[in-house]
Amino acid sequence: MTDTTGTDNRTSASGQGLHRTIISVDAMGGDRGPAAVVAGLAKSARKNKHIGFVLHGDGPELQKLVAKRPELSGICDIRHAEGVVTMDDKPSHIIRHGKNTSMWSAVESVKSREAEVCVSCGNTGALMALSMLRLRKLPGVSRPAIAVFWPSRNPLGFNIMLDGGADIRADEMDLLQYALMGASYARNGHGIKRPRVGLLNVGTEEHKGRGEIRAAAELIAEAAPVAEFDFVGFVEGGDLLSDRVDVIVTDGFTGNVALKTGEGTAKLVNDFLKEAFTATPLSKIAAILATTSLRRLKKRMDPRRSNGGVFLGLNGTVVKSHGSADATGISAAIKLAFDLAQSGFNEKLAARVAYAPGDAQDAPALIEKKPSGEK
Amino acid sequence: MTDTTGTDNRTSASGQGLHRTIISVDAMGGDRGPAAVVAGLAKSARKNKHIGFVLHGDGPELQKLVAKRPELSGICDIRHAEGVVTMDDKPSHIIRHGKNTSMWSAVESVKSREAEVCVSCGNTGALMALSMLRLRKLPGVSRPAIAVFWPSRNPLGFNIMLDGGADIRADEMDLLQYALMGASYARNGHGIKRPRVGLLNVGTEEHKGRGEIRAAAELIAEAAPVAEFDFVGFVEGGDLLSDRVDVIVTDGFTGNVALKTGEGTAKLVNDFLKEAFTATPLSKIAAILATTSLRRLKKRMDPRRSNGGVFLGLNGTVVKSHGSADATGISAAIKLAFDLAQSGFNEKLAARVAYAPGDAQDAPALIEKKPSGEK
Repeated sequence: MTDTTGTDNRTSASGQGLHRTIISVDAMGGDRGPAAVVAGLAKSARKNKHIGFVLHGDGPELQKLVAKRPELSGICDIRHAEGVVTMDDKPSHIIRHGKNTSMWSAVESVKSREAEVCVSCGNTGALMALSMLRLRKLPGVSRPAIAVFWPSRNPLGFNIMLDGGADIRADEMDLLQYALMGASYARNGHGIKRPRVGLLNVGTEEHKGRGEIRAAAELIAEAAPVAEFDFVGFVEGGDLLSDRVDVIVTDGFTGNVALKTGEGTAKLVNDFLKEAFTATPLSKIAAILATTSLRRLKKRMDPRRSNGGVFLGLNGTVVKSHGSADATGISAAIKLAFDLAQSGFNEKLAARVAYAPGDAQDAPALIEKKPSGEK
Repeated sequence: MTDTTGTDNRTSASGQGLHRTIISVDAMGGDRGPAAVVAGLAKSARKNKHIGFVLHGDGPELQKLVAKRPELSGICDIRHAEGVVTMDDKPSHIIRHGKNTSMWSAVESVKSREAEVCVSCGNTGALMALSMLRLRKLPGVSRPAIAVFWPSRNPLGFNIMLDGGADIRADEMDLLQYALMGASYARNGHGIKRPRVGLLNVGTEEHKGRGEIRAAAELIAEAAPVAEFDFVGFVEGGDLLSDRVDVIVTDGFTGNVALKTGEGTAKLVNDFLKEAFTATPLSKIAAILATTSLRRLKKRMDPRRSNGGVFLGLNGTVVKSHGSADATGISAAIKLAFDLAQSGFNEKLAARVAYAPGDAQDAPALIEKKPSGEK
């Protein structure tokens, strides 16, 4: 905040009479470096006149990159930060020694309310740790979660899964909060009026699964009518891609393994597909004829189109873009961040989780029955 | 055993001077009914002169089906069983009331040693419960596991993952046993001389993951040189499909979710591919030209080619075929069962797990150091 580089830019941006939603962007953490990030911002700025940025990272480098993009002129405030969080940095180290990093600075802009939402494609663990440290958890939330997209057969083209890896454990109360937060996110972030929520398990029969999951099923079923979502019960791994559910709730360990398994499988099929279409001269001709079809397929499975894991349960919104995101991916994450800020979703989510059963004595009208608590 | 239907067949089979490996087959549990099972047996019998079957299920129906298949003449012993285990039956119910079922009868043939291995495409939970009840766990094994195949970039075309869903929990000692059993299975069932074993986690850095997984990593690293496998350390969901590992160890909850997520993703991509190739007249022409390429892709991803989850850790070998397996899938499961019986793999596996660290005092030469036990 003491660094004044670019402050004039920002003032002039506000001075143009347009109300801009300001997004704080960590320019440094991604695999493709700040050039890809700035290209993504430019892409977003071309499409959206109501957006502005506070960009954190290597000042001189960012000045040069931004100067090349006329779309960013006057709407991009640059904050110099010496340090960069690498993918190998331990979250605990960053919390103790990371004050000079672009990631810390980017989160700080949300804490100080100069920006409404933060976007980073850096180290997920460090970003979550910093976000928890600086933004703090929402009242009533024990474990924040990362909500991720999943390509699916649903009309929107994706499902939402949480927790994608914020925490490696979750008890029944955490799973209930994930359901409440996920439903709120689906409604306010993606316009799904009455989200269908499923609880990930190894079987759809009620007698299966771990104790905390069975207990969570009871809590979520009780909360569903009050919190205005439909609980479809237990779902299995294959349902992450199905159209019978919009929000899938699971612990962060299982969620992270499932996420990476799904990504890996899609990539393997894609590689095999490429090999199949280059195997013989005839298959190469077929590939040329099928260009449009294959491009259509690629688009539907393209993780860049639905890039952005959202941290839920904090006093402020943080969007984690994929580490390998290119300009298209960054721009998708920026769009998501913008939409979330516009909808005021974090305030709505805060109101929703504040009334979880744990606080039911304070809000008897919302959850009439206490959880039966068969643990 | 008191039912003598077809006993003559079997005697005559043995009487032909060929040594046959006898496989016990539950004909009834699959989604496609006994006709698909018998078609699968016929397919196997055409390729393999050293195979014989004890077939369990509805006697009159099986007699009719087998009579239509000249390949099965004289090598298929039919055992009538009234009951059928359905996909919805609870394992606990089958254990108490399932004595009259074809599944029970099929497992019993392995217990009595008239068959060397059992194959069923019925209810996984019931099959595991019955197998544990009748065959009992191997000495030193606390939780048996299901080892499943995974299409991968490895030369063999697949990786092995366990546990695919036999149990929903696993502590560090269980995970160590899965590593020992998985390595033994890869070596003796699939000819991988020095299997590379990885432990599924949410990150490859050593500080990540649950306590029992970190403890298991130490135990497995200690056991690796003695048990003649390479421990590659932590792997992530995406590595289920990679060529840096042959055997992936995880608990049955995570394994089952990952398995179904992977299957679901492959199916979704396949469906999207079909839609892409039927979208326009040009794409339909491309699809015709690309027939061979698409067939090649399909074959590489075809779950039927590597059908068969193997139950590890019991006094006897049980192969679980996919519930929806057709003749090709059944035949693949039969081939796996045959190969396992031929290699005497269960005896080798029993010898391996008998010397887990828990028994190290009885076999100091195999595991020199006691586990450090940092739980």
